[in-house]
Amino acid sequence: MLPGILQQTHQWVAERLPPGGIAVDATLGNGHDIRFLADHVGDAGRVFGFDIQEEAVRRSRLRLEKESLDGRVTLFHDSHEKIKFHLYNRSILHIDAVMFNLGYLPHGDKTITTQTDTTLDAMRQAVDMLNPGGILTAVLYTGHPGGREEAEQVLAWMKQLDTDYQTVQYQVLNREHAPILTAVCKG
Amino acid sequence: MLPGILQQTHQWVAERLPPGGIAVDATLGNGHDIRFLADHVGDAGRVFGFDIQEEAVRRSRLRLEKESLDGRVTLFHDSHEKIKFHLYNRSILHIDAVMFNLGYLPHGDKTITTQTDTTLDAMRQAVDMLNPGGILTAVLYTGHPGGREEAEQVLAWMKQLDTDYQTVQYQVLNREHAPILTAVCKG
Repeated sequence: MLPGILQQTHQWVAERLPPGGIAVDATLGNGHDIRFLADHVGDAGRVFGFDIQEEAVRRSRLRLEKESLDGRVTLFHDSHEKIKFHLYNRSILHIDAVMFNLGYLPHGDKTITTQTDTTLDAMRQAVDMLNPGGILTAVLYTGHPGGREEAEQVLAWMKQLDTDYQTVQYQVLNREHAPILTAVCKG
Repeated sequence: MLPGILQQTHQWVAERLPPGGIAVDATLGNGHDIRFLADHVGDAGRVFGFDIQEEAVRRSRLRLEKESLDGRVTLFHDSHEKIKFHLYNRSILHIDAVMFNLGYLPHGDKTITTQTDTTLDAMRQAVDMLNPGGILTAVLYTGHPGGREEAEQVLAWMKQLDTDYQTVQYQVLNREHAPILTAVCKG
């Protein structure tokens, strides 16, 4: 079969995030992506994670500790709108990869979702910090209330990015509410 | 940068078309895809090519002869609606890969384009002949008259394919009239 969304996302990030690189997980959720990023950057790398839900930060910390990857990671119980604020405070001006997984926390409170305004604000900050060759990935979900509108606004923003960037979309067609993988690469 | 449409198309096909396999180029055009297919299947493979324009068949034949790949290939100056007719006639019941590149012949008569009804008919036949693990790719163009409607109808058909198949879409977002790569894999 063709690559699934998770597999394709991780492949694109892995190809562009070097050992010793700097990565951001903008939506910790269950901690799958930050575990992947922390594993991938190696001992010399740094990964920063954001989530507004304490439960997501807790689950991510547990997962990282279990695999002894927590030493490479800094977690913020804060909104991803604060990416620049927190990274600049640590003299981190550029990043190699940043991952967004929109929607709600799986097995969590489904009424707490990402909000389009803050999502786009965070994406603008993240893209602005990308190193040449760096990548932003965003998985968009359309099955929950507000999801379709959020996906459309993220896609509209990506469509108008200038040609310093390449933005692409990948999705399964014959499954209802299949998530949409989007990516922005800095040339 | 992320893979371009041509690169991604060839990668997906190459991963699913074995040496000695059977492939079809449903829209010969300038012969780029059939050259790729003929090269990839090796000496034990067979490739069949279709185009309604004599000029496309001629260009493809020249390209194949130049690289001594013509011995692996049978070209038909006929519509891709006749895929089953011509392949069944040669006792070929199953194929591993089939490529469609819709729209008009580059540097040819732009008023002669693929037509949605015959395109969909050919795609249904091709998908029906796919071996398990086989792939159909179709690159859709939206910039010429009728292109947008054809793309929408192909996408609508792919969306309703049952779960024996996986159908996906890949495209660049921040370029106007960027072609849309679609693929159907048989599970």
